[in-house]
Amino acid sequence: MATMDATELRELGQQFRVDSVRCAAAAKSGHPTSGMSGADLMAVLVANHLRYDFGDPKKAVNDRLIFSKGHASPLLYAIFRAAGAITDEELLTYRKFGSMLEGHPTPLIPWVDVATGSLGQGLPYGVGMALAGKYLDRLPYRVWVLHGDSETAEGSVWEAFEHAAHYELDNLTAILDVNRLGQRGETMVGWNTGVYVERARAFGWNAIEIDGHDVEEIDRAYKEAAEVHGRPTVIVARTIKGKGVKAVEDKDGWHGKALDNPDEAIEELGGIRNIHVDVTKPEQAEPHRFPDGPLELPSYDLGEEVATRKAYGEALAALGSARGDVVALDGEVSNSTFAEIFKKAHPDRYFEMYIAEQQMVAAAVGLQARGWNAFASTFAAFLSRAYDFIRMAAISRANLRLTGSHAGVSIGEDGPSQMGLEDIAALRAVHSSTVLHPCDANQTAKLVAAMADTKGIVFLRTLRPNTPVIYEADEEFAVGGSRVIRSSDDDDVTLVGAGITVHEALKAADALEEEGISARVIDAYSIKPIDVETLQAAAEVTGRIVTVEDHFPEGGLGDAVLAALAENGEHARVVKLAVREMPRSGKPEELLHAYGIDAESIAAAARRLVEAQVAAS
Amino acid sequence: MATMDATELRELGQQFRVDSVRCAAAAKSGHPTSGMSGADLMAVLVANHLRYDFGDPKKAVNDRLIFSKGHASPLLYAIFRAAGAITDEELLTYRKFGSMLEGHPTPLIPWVDVATGSLGQGLPYGVGMALAGKYLDRLPYRVWVLHGDSETAEGSVWEAFEHAAHYELDNLTAILDVNRLGQRGETMVGWNTGVYVERARAFGWNAIEIDGHDVEEIDRAYKEAAEVHGRPTVIVARTIKGKGVKAVEDKDGWHGKALDNPDEAIEELGGIRNIHVDVTKPEQAEPHRFPDGPLELPSYDLGEEVATRKAYGEALAALGSARGDVVALDGEVSNSTFAEIFKKAHPDRYFEMYIAEQQMVAAAVGLQARGWNAFASTFAAFLSRAYDFIRMAAISRANLRLTGSHAGVSIGEDGPSQMGLEDIAALRAVHSSTVLHPCDANQTAKLVAAMADTKGIVFLRTLRPNTPVIYEADEEFAVGGSRVIRSSDDDDVTLVGAGITVHEALKAADALEEEGISARVIDAYSIKPIDVETLQAAAEVTGRIVTVEDHFPEGGLGDAVLAALAENGEHARVVKLAVREMPRSGKPEELLHAYGIDAESIAAAARRLVEAQVAAS
Repeated sequence: MATMDATELRELGQQFRVDSVRCAAAAKSGHPTSGMSGADLMAVLVANHLRYDFGDPKKAVNDRLIFSKGHASPLLYAIFRAAGAITDEELLTYRKFGSMLEGHPTPLIPWVDVATGSLGQGLPYGVGMALAGKYLDRLPYRVWVLHGDSETAEGSVWEAFEHAAHYELDNLTAILDVNRLGQRGETMVGWNTGVYVERARAFGWNAIEIDGHDVEEIDRAYKEAAEVHGRPTVIVARTIKGKGVKAVEDKDGWHGKALDNPDEAIEELGGIRNIHVDVTKPEQAEPHRFPDGPLELPSYDLGEEVATRKAYGEALAALGSARGDVVALDGEVSNSTFAEIFKKAHPDRYFEMYIAEQQMVAAAVGLQARGWNAFASTFAAFLSRAYDFIRMAAISRANLRLTGSHAGVSIGEDGPSQMGLEDIAALRAVHSSTVLHPCDANQTAKLVAAMADTKGIVFLRTLRPNTPVIYEADEEFAVGGSRVIRSSDDDDVTLVGAGITVHEALKAADALEEEGISARVIDAYSIKPIDVETLQAAAEVTGRIVTVEDHFPEGGLGDAVLAALAENGEHARVVKLAVREMPRSGKPEELLHAYGIDAESIAAAARRLVEAQVAAS
Repeated sequence: MATMDATELRELGQQFRVDSVRCAAAAKSGHPTSGMSGADLMAVLVANHLRYDFGDPKKAVNDRLIFSKGHASPLLYAIFRAAGAITDEELLTYRKFGSMLEGHPTPLIPWVDVATGSLGQGLPYGVGMALAGKYLDRLPYRVWVLHGDSETAEGSVWEAFEHAAHYELDNLTAILDVNRLGQRGETMVGWNTGVYVERARAFGWNAIEIDGHDVEEIDRAYKEAAEVHGRPTVIVARTIKGKGVKAVEDKDGWHGKALDNPDEAIEELGGIRNIHVDVTKPEQAEPHRFPDGPLELPSYDLGEEVATRKAYGEALAALGSARGDVVALDGEVSNSTFAEIFKKAHPDRYFEMYIAEQQMVAAAVGLQARGWNAFASTFAAFLSRAYDFIRMAAISRANLRLTGSHAGVSIGEDGPSQMGLEDIAALRAVHSSTVLHPCDANQTAKLVAAMADTKGIVFLRTLRPNTPVIYEADEEFAVGGSRVIRSSDDDDVTLVGAGITVHEALKAADALEEEGISARVIDAYSIKPIDVETLQAAAEVTGRIVTVEDHFPEGGLGDAVLAALAENGEHARVVKLAVREMPRSGKPEELLHAYGIDAESIAAAARRLVEAQVAAS
């Protein structure tokens, strides 16, 4: 199996060190010493164990290599050079504007699947890819994760440890580069590598302790990892940060800095080398695919009372029957989000992620990186637990479908810890995101289907309580659209809602009509992108807008409407209704009323707007 | 020590079960079965081990009891009743609007320190309180955390395990209620309690395995926990969910539901009891206090080039000298955030939290619950890792000071994973939050001092690069204020920036002046609350506003300005400049230019606005 002997491997490791130093010297910044500790680990991997076709990175049967310690990117880029994927000239564009070789790796690089750089994320992504390999693609590829020791302080790493063992991911190998030193000093564990071994074993892993600079030990460890069945393996490698250059070896204060004397360092490392690694290509094999079928979305009768979360589950199950690429994950609340309906219909494409939202989102990112259409759900409030992963997923250019149920105070008695009240703001702010918030079951079904074809991070916000079906089952709802539910040419005021507040706005419009005030009602189910044109038209006609959302006031529907109008220089008087206190437990209707977002509050706000402008004119 | 014998303890446990059933029956919802598994564990604790003065919950020397499994609140409320803190009538207000006994506990209840309900948070808060007890208050109180087994899937729990061991928190006891069943089914570990023991030991804890319904075993375990030195203890208790009522015992499908036949269940449990527990009060003792002194904030000369992150560190160190209640935490980046300056000045009030942002924020919440003024820092981007904790801190009514450095593309070469670009939106959306973003060192120093007296969640956003000092050291900057840096009575346009973009706006104003366009420049350093009056005045005079922020477009400074103007019905033409692409690596100035937020872009936007309106008139 080995294609390089120990002497050659040592030379390759030195080449990786030299190239790490050269990258950082050219950039005058970066993290050379973090790459130098892992150089031998990577030399043995790419020369003797990795199965990867650099000419065809999307090949389904390729192994996957994730640099969880993304700041060690100079080492990764050095591998690319050795593999002939980039030239020496390209290598030296590291961190320069316009280069794909950024400070931390992103999928702008063809041989990178997921962005790293926020620590403790690589292994959770690896779990997602290994799940794909074992249960969906059903291909023999392996997932290798180069992991820092400092980043094991992140809880997400232990979520990954537990889930990888639970799902018996023997195709996953973590390579723990224990160089002892973090950015500002020693880790909690230092070089007590036995501690990592004990922890890994307690979490159900096979663990192998080695000297991370002994290429023969490393080689044996990779072989053992490949032979273990039913359990993932972690190779706990004791290494030296800055290894090979005395001025920085195992020294504090050299994290994230170019070396002072790169030429001397390169000489100490034996000079520039040009070893080429002909990385072994995997044998061709095709991934398993689940069958496609006709799309038969659930449909609901007008007036029927159905929770949009229920419609999510039913629509997702239908989508799964239509599209073999759809998979679902949930964070131990599938009987609340109704992901359980998908699970029952397609048990082999459902992954229970337990109460570990970071791992859930990361697994979805890993699955989509392998070409699967991953839908992940939990309470909207608890997506906040994975916010850093969602942010990073945007940098990964991931196509990720997230559903957050139990939005807002309309959940009632469970109280504020379970209410999504910041979720629209948080998700709108993510680059490439789409934010959808349907108000009825038919609309939900159509939007769930649309999610599967929407690029980027798509967030669907669903409701706990039943709401009446107000749209016919054959109506279409496009991302970026809205629905004018009632209007006339001489409307006095426009009411803009989404989700539960659409129903409150409709009731308010009825009440206002009795007083002679004509209210246009817009269902802004697509909060990002928002339907600028329809809002603008309403602003022109009515000049007065009341926005109403079951969300805190900042960054939600109201702010989205204001931004849309500002974009077009449209001047309307806008009043924003939103939850402005910390809510309490209570019945949904009590809470909608108490926090000023029910029909009565909407009607009052509209009335004040109309009266104020009548008085002023 | 024991004040109740085994028979009495068993009766008390049954009372807690009966009261859990009664609560949920009255509310017609809630989580009685989750309380029934932990009833014996809590009976032994409150009767024989807890030291707590219910009449004086703020007493410094009181033990602390945290229900990490917050949904088991009926059990907690049953304890309050037994302790005489609430009446039977109050108990039955559970989950009713207006009652302090909400679905999940919050500090609206005098005997609750932190809100729970988002799982996996109680132990990290407990770490914060135990740190306070051992290192700051220096009092013998113990921190007890009732912990669910399902929630050990959350990585934050393992952050807490590692930090508690690292800080040798022998005053912390986790009581793991292993009832096997989560909301929708069995946990990954089930009743293999030995797995929890192994994991806990691998993380450096003392672990005791018991039958969680054997009151004598429980009693011995608490005694042992109190006697162990240098290590925290976890009591791994095998329990039965719904214990005592055959219809629901150890059965799926009974999470979060009132029992079908509460009267029968109460009879099966032996009927209603009225046992009073006279919880032992702790011996009076006063907490350690660090000395106060005069406040001597650092000052900087006009024109000096200083990073606001550096000014944060220097100001925080000065604040620490002035106020003995100030403590600091950082997530292994103290040499980047400059929290290290505080650490050097006040090593006994600094806690290194390593790369574990959830534990960092939770520890700060725990410290503030014990009366300490906790400042926690990391990169703004990485506060996203702790977003659920920040959200929950607002429900805890916590006074929390967070500093996020390395805001925006101005960090340069490290790339988007390290750039805070959603942070303003995310933090603005949190209830009770304040968002501050200074542009120079003197302003930063003043705002750091103001943070210590600002209620709620206060977020300070600092910059990586040096910026010129533009304010005199004696200028005052209030929360909610802004600074009009240049203006005249006939300004054509207003430029609103914060942080790095203030400096770009000033350069733009210079350039515009040469073209005969007079630009007002506002430094909106307080983004929430924002200075509505100053913005309104500017809108009235100039009618045209350009906002510019180093942040994504949604929910940031621009949206805050739009919301402020809308609030007052002010009509100005607003153009919002923000980062609208996923940024790349590059030099700060290259990136500010590429993403359209540098002086040239601002001047161009202002010019277009002025020309468009001239053309239109």
